[in-house]
Amino acid sequence: MKGHTPTFRGDDTMKRSTYGIIYGLFAALFLLFVWYYNFRGDRQDAWDQSPSGLAGDIEDKYVMVTFQSGLDYWRTIMKGFEDAAQGLNVSVEFRGATQYDPHEEITVLEQAIARKPAGIAVTAIDPESLNPAIDKAVKAGIPVVLFDSGAPKSAAYSFLGTDNYNAGAQAAREMGRLLGGRGEVAVITQPNQLNHEERTNGFRDTLRAEFPEIGIAEVADGKGDIGISEKTAKEILARHPEVGGFFATQANGGVGIGQALKDLGVAGRKTLIGFDTDKGTLDLVKDGTIDATLAQGTWNMGYWSLMELFHHHHRLVQPGNEDPQGTHSLPPYIDTGITVVTQANVDQYYAK
Amino acid sequence: MKGHTPTFRGDDTMKRSTYGIIYGLFAALFLLFVWYYNFRGDRQDAWDQSPSGLAGDIEDKYVMVTFQSGLDYWRTIMKGFEDAAQGLNVSVEFRGATQYDPHEEITVLEQAIARKPAGIAVTAIDPESLNPAIDKAVKAGIPVVLFDSGAPKSAAYSFLGTDNYNAGAQAAREMGRLLGGRGEVAVITQPNQLNHEERTNGFRDTLRAEFPEIGIAEVADGKGDIGISEKTAKEILARHPEVGGFFATQANGGVGIGQALKDLGVAGRKTLIGFDTDKGTLDLVKDGTIDATLAQGTWNMGYWSLMELFHHHHRLVQPGNEDPQGTHSLPPYIDTGITVVTQANVDQYYAK
Repeated sequence: MKGHTPTFRGDDTMKRSTYGIIYGLFAALFLLFVWYYNFRGDRQDAWDQSPSGLAGDIEDKYVMVTFQSGLDYWRTIMKGFEDAAQGLNVSVEFRGATQYDPHEEITVLEQAIARKPAGIAVTAIDPESLNPAIDKAVKAGIPVVLFDSGAPKSAAYSFLGTDNYNAGAQAAREMGRLLGGRGEVAVITQPNQLNHEERTNGFRDTLRAEFPEIGIAEVADGKGDIGISEKTAKEILARHPEVGGFFATQANGGVGIGQALKDLGVAGRKTLIGFDTDKGTLDLVKDGTIDATLAQGTWNMGYWSLMELFHHHHRLVQPGNEDPQGTHSLPPYIDTGITVVTQANVDQYYAK
Repeated sequence: MKGHTPTFRGDDTMKRSTYGIIYGLFAALFLLFVWYYNFRGDRQDAWDQSPSGLAGDIEDKYVMVTFQSGLDYWRTIMKGFEDAAQGLNVSVEFRGATQYDPHEEITVLEQAIARKPAGIAVTAIDPESLNPAIDKAVKAGIPVVLFDSGAPKSAAYSFLGTDNYNAGAQAAREMGRLLGGRGEVAVITQPNQLNHEERTNGFRDTLRAEFPEIGIAEVADGKGDIGISEKTAKEILARHPEVGGFFATQANGGVGIGQALKDLGVAGRKTLIGFDTDKGTLDLVKDGTIDATLAQGTWNMGYWSLMELFHHHHRLVQPGNEDPQGTHSLPPYIDTGITVVTQANVDQYYAK
């Protein structure tokens, strides 16, 4: 036991030194983490120079505002918004006016602004009503972008949506190909809505330029209604039995025409090009009544909306090209694209 | 010295235990870092689910290909490309054909493709020549986007550039404002180049629609040359002394007109709107000869080119909307914007 005390004393010294070293290492580890988190944390007004990439703060909330919030159409847009948020480590929130009512959407937008989010993506129920609310948000330093339906005179930084003229052009090319470059066609549209007018113009101009042997027998109003479009298609075929193809600039139009072709026993024998990818349209693509439908780049609308808002919030715009008045240099327009959906790829478009 | 040996033994034990603990902690630290780097490292074909944001691998090389690589015009585009690369933790490389020669640019592009980069951003010297090389790259799985000058029939995924029609429209609004909505103007352009034709059309249509009391006396060819534009401007003013404003759709045109106005002693008394932000133009903005010039969103061209290439390389496009044939859903067009440069903000545009 001679060595006992010294051993104890040694143990004691050892323990004290060891604890010191352990404490030191833990302190170092702690400092390392503090440094690490400071280094790559949210630096709002500067480039994130760390090698960890583009990342935000999970506390930053980006809001999407819609109208008729029950519409299936918004689902993929919301998914794109969410996917971008996940990639960038930020949060999202969805606020929708339930009705097709400008006043309700204004209220919802005002409520979103009041909560001072990191950014707002909004789709405009019409080109004018939301302008005062949008301008107020921008003035308050909240970046705003518009998707799907724009408000050109507002102060919003960017518009992300379909190039409708080009969508009509793509429909014309599909029609020209399917008809072998000749024949008569008809269009069922909503003549008083700008996006539908642009689709019709793109369709008409492209047929004229690239398929001069295809004529347009009629351009008719389907009023965005399945029943009216069905009736209209039947009337057109009664007046012009030579019509070999239809282009519907809107989803219900395509479903209505499809119904008419089925009733008349000519489904699959007349070419039909629809628009959008609601379930009714997809079912008719699957059974061969609709030859092709045009899918809008809805995921892109949501994804790149968030990407733009994030870039503005973090001032990742052209360095030196800003001023306190809110000058910015985000791309003013992003064409979110069109994909042609046929029997070959229709299954990808059913809601999962 | 009685306690000497035990103390030594104690020291010895202490040392061994302490080293063990230190080794253990270092091993833990090492494992932590291994885990950390694995966790947030390059996962090429999937969403990076970590909270560290969008990040690539510094080994991934994205290449930009230009022609007339000495042109000052590319500088800000390259800066945008670099800034995005820094943000995303990837590498860039710049390859330029030195001459205005399609064959040389094809060779440079082919060399870039051979090195199998993560993506290529290229500006097309003309709309056709590069198509076979671009299509070859896309077929080989290398994403390609076009900036500044497009090649619409190529397989490239996207085009990022100025909406030239809109640029002309903005010039018209600036002209209308400066002339107080009335008077005669002239345009000096290059009539056979598509982008210049679009600028002229946007200018003409917008004046007609929004400033019906402003007439266009002449649209003349300046051949992209300072001397010829100067001579042309003098001839126009001799024929039409009532002309109160000029719009040049191209940088040299603006400088040439400015020279003419100085020679005739009317600099600052005739309205002059130029294009682009080369030093010659900026100097004339600074001294008041050019009232406004239109700066293209060159930084955006580079920045968002890399952003799109990165998204395709990492398959961060619409989930479920891909197939082995290379289907993709990047936005097909990004309008990189226009900023009006006047004496108020001209200093920001000088090369730093």
